[in-house]
Amino acid sequence: MTNSPEFGKVVIFGVGLIGGSFALGLKAAGQVEEVVGFGRSLSSLTQALDLGVIDRVGANAGQEVSDADLVLIATPVGQMPEIMARIAPYLGPQTVVTDGGSTKGDVVAAARAAFGDRLGQFVPAHPIAGAENSGAAAARADLYAGKKVVLTPLPENPVLNVAHVRSAWEWCGAVIHELTPAEHDRVFAAVSHLPHLLSFALVHDLAVRDNRDLFFSFAASGFRDFTRIAASHPEMWRDVCLANRVALLEELDRYRAQLDELRDALQRGDGAQLEETFDVARTARRAWAADKQEN
Amino acid sequence: MTNSPEFGKVVIFGVGLIGGSFALGLKAAGQVEEVVGFGRSLSSLTQALDLGVIDRVGANAGQEVSDADLVLIATPVGQMPEIMARIAPYLGPQTVVTDGGSTKGDVVAAARAAFGDRLGQFVPAHPIAGAENSGAAAARADLYAGKKVVLTPLPENPVLNVAHVRSAWEWCGAVIHELTPAEHDRVFAAVSHLPHLLSFALVHDLAVRDNRDLFFSFAASGFRDFTRIAASHPEMWRDVCLANRVALLEELDRYRAQLDELRDALQRGDGAQLEETFDVARTARRAWAADKQEN
Repeated sequence: MTNSPEFGKVVIFGVGLIGGSFALGLKAAGQVEEVVGFGRSLSSLTQALDLGVIDRVGANAGQEVSDADLVLIATPVGQMPEIMARIAPYLGPQTVVTDGGSTKGDVVAAARAAFGDRLGQFVPAHPIAGAENSGAAAARADLYAGKKVVLTPLPENPVLNVAHVRSAWEWCGAVIHELTPAEHDRVFAAVSHLPHLLSFALVHDLAVRDNRDLFFSFAASGFRDFTRIAASHPEMWRDVCLANRVALLEELDRYRAQLDELRDALQRGDGAQLEETFDVARTARRAWAADKQEN
Repeated sequence: MTNSPEFGKVVIFGVGLIGGSFALGLKAAGQVEEVVGFGRSLSSLTQALDLGVIDRVGANAGQEVSDADLVLIATPVGQMPEIMARIAPYLGPQTVVTDGGSTKGDVVAAARAAFGDRLGQFVPAHPIAGAENSGAAAARADLYAGKKVVLTPLPENPVLNVAHVRSAWEWCGAVIHELTPAEHDRVFAAVSHLPHLLSFALVHDLAVRDNRDLFFSFAASGFRDFTRIAASHPEMWRDVCLANRVALLEELDRYRAQLDELRDALQRGDGAQLEETFDVARTARRAWAADKQEN
């Protein structure tokens, strides 16, 4: 007696690192019968096919989703509204749709507009698994092993649909957390989107100077770490910033107020306040690192 | 026939990572006859002695510097004025003094006040070799191998004194650069001091929230890199910020103006400007990393 896989057909839009690793994870767990891929470029689809990430390149999105068990939209968030609109009329009654977007409020709004009274079939998700590389060639079956995936279920979601999406990510080895979309966006504005903006801003500020070579030549390990995320993908981060604009503006304003305070302390030579601020930060950073077993 | 070492007696104030590695570097090169150490705590001096970092613990600073060839002041910059004042009256005519401080304008001002018409005997320096650890136990003969040391010679320095200090750092394996003190402070305000301030500020901003655990629990690799320098030593960074206050305020204000521009672009949904800023930053960051063979 063999166990049959939990999922029959899985359709993936965007067979890059995120979508491709999801496919490979389900395959490694023996939990999918067939993976069909869609994407913007034929070359990346062909590569995904050659690598065994997908079993087949999809031709007609509406037709493919109608008998799919699960659909993952793993494109940049800016492309999701169009894909949702394209597939919405064709979802089978059994089809559950999820996504891999790093913002949720905008994705939920797009889903609400596209799916209408079928919104319950869409369960939003955000896998927290960045990587240096992108594309199907970078996809790995174990990308999500031990990594967090945040689900932001909607009031409209039947419990069973949430369970299916949760289960798929768990087969990939992920640890599931649930937040509301608003909580999600606020948290990631603070711990991810704002740091990216700040890091891009620092490097840009140096890069536009006439004597930038002098500055860059003396940049050392602290600069290296602080600015590593400034090498991130500009188009993706433009989309993330715009998609999470409201929460990011709130976090940015909060941070600017914090900088104003530090500036005042520096201006008046208030060493005690500077040291107190640095000390609170160091204590928290060390506790975080110890907890995460990071450095 | 044996070559005699370039330096007879070297006196080091502050036998931690910076001073201790300087001593070990000169010893490994066979270029010093005797290293005498001074420090705030007897236990660290004893440790330095036990580890062979120094040959002797100094008792009387004035007496020790009078027949020293070279004196390195490798304490936090906040302690340098007092040490300079203490040794100034006793410098021998052959004694050259240098330092390891990470700011230069304030150190030069303190040296000018302490050494007066002997200012020419003081050659300011800044070794660019941070490390995770501190203390004599972390000192290594090869800490400076291939690392930059910035000299900021003064108009009052005889060429021979600059050459001696340059030579000492070169025996330690360092690559020597020269800047004016003002250039030095501006460059390091931008590429080191400001990033530290920004990183401390981000972590502090999260740490003072009631729901900080929620935020920290979803912080991932981007946060880890961006905030690694927020685990730096609060007292040291307080001193650096205060010591380099003028240049740091200039850089901070420049950065705040940059953030204001990004905020405006975000507010009005100007994706083109965001992407352009991120793209300039990414291009510069990648070029820097390629040039430094960093990641």
